Amino acid sequence: MNYLHQRRLVLTQAFKAKGVDAFLVTTPVNVSYLTGFTGEDSYFVINAKHEILVSDSRFDEQIKEECADLEAHIRPLTRTTLEAAAEVLTKIGAKSVGVEGNRLTLGALEQLKALAPKLTFVPLEGLVETQRMVKDPGEVEKIREAVRVAERGFRMFVATLREADTEKEMVDALEGYVRRAGARGTSFPPIIAVGERGALPHAPPTAKELGDGSKLLVDWGADLGYKSDLTRTLRSPFGTAPSRRNKQERVGYDFDKLYAVVLAAQNAALAAIRPGVKAKDVDAAARAVFANAKLDKYPDLKLDKCFTHGLGHGIGLEVHEGPKVRANSEDVLEAGMVITIEPGIYIPNWGGIRIEDDVLVTHDGFKLLTTLSREAATLSVS
Amino acid sequence: MNYLHQRRLVLTQAFKAKGVDAFLVTTPVNVSYLTGFTGEDSYFVINAKHEILVSDSRFDEQIKEECADLEAHIRPLTRTTLEAAAEVLTKIGAKSVGVEGNRLTLGALEQLKALAPKLTFVPLEGLVETQRMVKDPGEVEKIREAVRVAERGFRMFVATLREADTEKEMVDALEGYVRRAGARGTSFPPIIAVGERGALPHAPPTAKELGDGSKLLVDWGADLGYKSDLTRTLRSPFGTAPSRRNKQERVGYDFDKLYAVVLAAQNAALAAIRPGVKAKDVDAAARAVFANAKLDKYPDLKLDKCFTHGLGHGIGLEVHEGPKVRANSEDVLEAGMVITIEPGIYIPNWGGIRIEDDVLVTHDGFKLLTTLSREAATLSVS
Repeated sequence: MNYLHQRRLVLTQAFKAKGVDAFLVTTPVNVSYLTGFTGEDSYFVINAKHEILVSDSRFDEQIKEECADLEAHIRPLTRTTLEAAAEVLTKIGAKSVGVEGNRLTLGALEQLKALAPKLTFVPLEGLVETQRMVKDPGEVEKIREAVRVAERGFRMFVATLREADTEKEMVDALEGYVRRAGARGTSFPPIIAVGERGALPHAPPTAKELGDGSKLLVDWGADLGYKSDLTRTLRSPFGTAPSRRNKQERVGYDFDKLYAVVLAAQNAALAAIRPGVKAKDVDAAARAVFANAKLDKYPDLKLDKCFTHGLGHGIGLEVHEGPKVRANSEDVLEAGMVITIEPGIYIPNWGGIRIEDDVLVTHDGFKLLTTLSREAATLSVS
Repeated sequence: MNYLHQRRLVLTQAFKAKGVDAFLVTTPVNVSYLTGFTGEDSYFVINAKHEILVSDSRFDEQIKEECADLEAHIRPLTRTTLEAAAEVLTKIGAKSVGVEGNRLTLGALEQLKALAPKLTFVPLEGLVETQRMVKDPGEVEKIREAVRVAERGFRMFVATLREADTEKEMVDALEGYVRRAGARGTSFPPIIAVGERGALPHAPPTAKELGDGSKLLVDWGADLGYKSDLTRTLRSPFGTAPSRRNKQERVGYDFDKLYAVVLAAQNAALAAIRPGVKAKDVDAAARAVFANAKLDKYPDLKLDKCFTHGLGHGIGLEVHEGPKVRANSEDVLEAGMVITIEPGIYIPNWGGIRIEDDVLVTHDGFKLLTTLSREAATLSVS
């Protein structure tokens, strides 16, 4: 029995348990997860007797190739996909239909009600997403490959850097190398921040040059269907020469000492990972390291105040998915979950240090999917 | 008075006319349109007395730079943006709150109701999107620039092609050139189809080589915040030599004759464009050309059956937005709208021809924003 069939069985059990006799999947990534279909603008209808992709003639051939075991309903040009889905649901004799409460819009539900007034539509929260949180071995291997490709692209990128490259040029170059390494593209627009710009955790790229700073933060990932998400922060050989000294980048804090604290926070979080642990306790393990860090040279620096975002998130078909690894999360770790662990500190006018790795929760702890060194290192520019 | 302020005034009139006293904007692109904020994960709350961005500390600095005239509510790490928005709405004394019916999920509305049980939430459809359909002169200029950059990137791309380039390599190369020409990236993953693969209107890129086909279809755009969306189909000097003849690509149909029909369909659609015209009538004008095309050599070829998608769509901050230009559209053209006109024909095992341009609706007709030639041409590969 293949994984796709298994996923549809699990979904069927889940929606039956909620008291509905059919389910309508409208979210593209969930349609892909359940059917293997990689096209767009298509919905999936399932009940005890039918598994039907509702699509249009652009994807007729593709569905035959990718989803040979499913029925297809190809809508005419004069119908919307939602109209076609309502027809299909009526035709298969559905009575109460689960819909994706965390995805479907208010307007779409109103339309469905108008199109199929005899059906009852029941919003259900995250049925497919809950299933997606725990990866099967094939999915773990795909994420591992997305990590490998991201790492290969990063090595190419680092090998080609020049002092005069701008953040924007570096973003574009990294995009090219991640594709060259085998990805469809990056899994999100890379964040590349020179010097003090690293203090913005989501810095958009500017014309600032690599040579304008004494450190470089790179947050990137590869998209091969499944996605990866990594961050490395490197000492840069630039930005400190008097001839070029960047007056915006405040010096004074010791990169290595701060890096060591971030790495210790990451290690503390990793050590806390195992099935049954609350995700928020993993976040707390990292946060405790920052709260307890003693940096005698900088008595005013409260590192816990410098860690301004959650510790991590699940990763898979989407770059952000469940579980949440943060203070307000109610999620509990299970073997097979793949999460990012990404502590960081951000100091205005100085910069930021973030270390992010992709981690599999195993039966007795964790396994890093990342192989790039996590130690403090200096960028080597030829 | 600046455009952003004007947009918020128009929105305020629109939601007041619907009988609500405040409005909550949760869609990132709509938040950007109304506030100029370019970050993520932030909401916008507006009533008669307040204009408040609800965000988190990652964007604290960015909001001060980009939205100096707005209030900002920076949520703590322990609150979600939705929780913070509910607090803000309560604090400013809102009673009935419009929400984006075509965007907000069923689950988010349930959460809002639970978080602020004394408020009434009213789903309103497309208030911001309706306003966004008609572009102001600054927006038109930004789209025109996105067209220029796409065209510049395309010329670089064409100049560097090699017979051995795969569809995937061409997609990656085009991505790089569009960025090199000045874009953040392409506005969607480019569609590049060699030979008979053009018969799939949304063909994902494969290992098929440029030299494996006698034509090349390229559908691409540039993202500079505002977006462009163009398609060109070129005769290729390859794919016909006996030594390399691609057995999958059926020959027999005359590229030039079919191209001339598609171009005539596009010209007929353009000629139909003016304020007050129904968008579906523009679609019909193109469709009529296909229905009436007489191709004596191919009596069995029904070109209207080969045009399997709508004629076009609005373009702006999103690559697909209003108005819809298709048979089932109720939209009426207005001066200031910017739409794609993209007739195409798709013949299994032979390929496809699509010509797509970005067009401004003017007071007395239309203006092409595209400057690339629309005539049939042969790819020149050095």
